[in-house]
Amino acid sequence: VSDDSYVWKRLSGSRVFENPYYSIDKDRVLHPQGYELDYYVVKPWRPAAGIVPVDEAGRVLMVRQYRYTTGVLSWEIPAGGVNEGEDCAAAAGREMREETGWEAQRIEPLYRYHPSHGSSSQTFNLFVGRGLKQVGEFDRKEIHSIGFFRRDEIEGMMTRNELVDGLSLTALLLFFRGK
Amino acid sequence: VSDDSYVWKRLSGSRVFENPYYSIDKDRVLHPQGYELDYYVVKPWRPAAGIVPVDEAGRVLMVRQYRYTTGVLSWEIPAGGVNEGEDCAAAAGREMREETGWEAQRIEPLYRYHPSHGSSSQTFNLFVGRGLKQVGEFDRKEIHSIGFFRRDEIEGMMTRNELVDGLSLTALLLFFRGK
Repeated sequence: VSDDSYVWKRLSGSRVFENPYYSIDKDRVLHPQGYELDYYVVKPWRPAAGIVPVDEAGRVLMVRQYRYTTGVLSWEIPAGGVNEGEDCAAAAGREMREETGWEAQRIEPLYRYHPSHGSSSQTFNLFVGRGLKQVGEFDRKEIHSIGFFRRDEIEGMMTRNELVDGLSLTALLLFFRGK
Repeated sequence: VSDDSYVWKRLSGSRVFENPYYSIDKDRVLHPQGYELDYYVVKPWRPAAGIVPVDEAGRVLMVRQYRYTTGVLSWEIPAGGVNEGEDCAAAAGREMREETGWEAQRIEPLYRYHPSHGSSSQTFNLFVGRGLKQVGEFDRKEIHSIGFFRRDEIEGMMTRNELVDGLSLTALLLFFRGK
């Protein structure tokens, strides 16, 4: 696109925070309308990947995990960070295997989006996993329990606002969309 | 619930970062299985609220805005931070009015979730706005353009993975769910 009249230009900036998961830059930015502003951007070192594991009856395998950030015991889909050099689909499959003890023989792309677009460059990569096979046990360190859920059960959880993990909610909505 | 065997207990912690939008705590945490770990939590000072504005023909009013975090010119629903002492629904209505120049006469709750559950306590509060009335102009500082979209147009944007803002994507999927 040659029209970049809408682009906010970085004039200068500095890294104001870093930990093993993300860095934070504070940039001085030139707005297209001519004024300057400060903008903080959270930059995760790695994207994240999540997967909707579906069995032959159409049930979804979910994990229940405690979220220290909110103190909630939350039903979610398997998800985690993409390792360096790792493909997003491979990461989704690995996280599923590690967290649930189940493997997907086929992994299909579902969606790619930015969960906190105003403050972070974080990208969530969503997949669907089919051809499930149990190859081990679920990870008792990260996961409280696992379970297979029918679509009507998941829809009920949504109607009651019980699915509060954004990645899982968005992935399940996209998976069921137009079906 | 009396069973708190799954709770990760905070042993100690310190605030390692602060800016006008959020703070970051680094906590030492006792896992229920007996080992200790460090956990970083991003804690926004305020929740955010977003609104799906729907006209009488069922079209959704969206805003196109440049996102400095990703360099994307993105179609989104009106959204923003909830001010101190402000009700989330009122914040959603205010953001819509400020960003689009349109007002909603009725604001209904849609959903409440955590967009980055692994790293942040951030809460997104979603609403639907009905009974639209134009009361001013859209905000040329924050917004590139605005437009009304039919459901089939929005579904097409989703099919092409063009809606990349998580809050908007999730809100629109929830709004169209089961319709």
